[in-house]
Amino acid sequence: MVEQRVLDRSFAALSDQTRRAVLARLGDGPATISELAEPAGITVTGMAKHVKVLEDAGLVSTQKVGRVRECRLGSEGLDDAMAWISFYQRLWDRRLDGLDAFLTLQKGHDS
Amino acid sequence: MVEQRVLDRSFAALSDQTRRAVLARLGDGPATISELAEPAGITVTGMAKHVKVLEDAGLVSTQKVGRVRECRLGSEGLDDAMAWISFYQRLWDRRLDGLDAFLTLQKGHDS
Repeated sequence: MVEQRVLDRSFAALSDQTRRAVLARLGDGPATISELAEPAGITVTGMAKHVKVLEDAGLVSTQKVGRVRECRLGSEGLDDAMAWISFYQRLWDRRLDGLDAFLTLQKGHDS
Repeated sequence: MVEQRVLDRSFAALSDQTRRAVLARLGDGPATISELAEPAGITVTGMAKHVKVLEDAGLVSTQKVGRVRECRLGSEGLDDAMAWISFYQRLWDRRLDGLDAFLTLQKGHDS
């Protein structure tokens, strides 16, 4: 049973374009907060807040290295979020299958 | 190219346990706002707000039937959200593959 608060935090962390771009960037390797802030066109303070949200969700981990904070992809990943979405995707597909069957039935009645 | 605002809205809509439960319930068929509010233990007004968030994200559609508002799963589904998560899941897997290769290498050095 997936902890609901973990899902809350994962989905909330993903609901922002800047944070999704950070995950994409970290997929290429670690980066400091400044290195993440510059291409995003936001301040270091602003980026630090986004990174904190990602860190609280377990999607990013950070480590102080000398005077800078290095960020990398966290260990938790998106397994739970993906499992959740897959499950509900099946509900949608079933709903569409039902609609399809209904339309086929209607077609048979009309002919 | 997926519209970023659509993803923002989808993930934000999914970041709440009550709203995820509503999608699960609607997977079994349509329901009124009152029918959704009761098992959630919240007011009809509170549930109407949650349904509005889901509707704005295209995950639920509603229709006024007489004096009540009937809700059902929306047409958009979670394809884009799932595609996004799948893509980033691969980044994570690649990162773990890299770590695995590193540990194997270390093991070779140690022996």
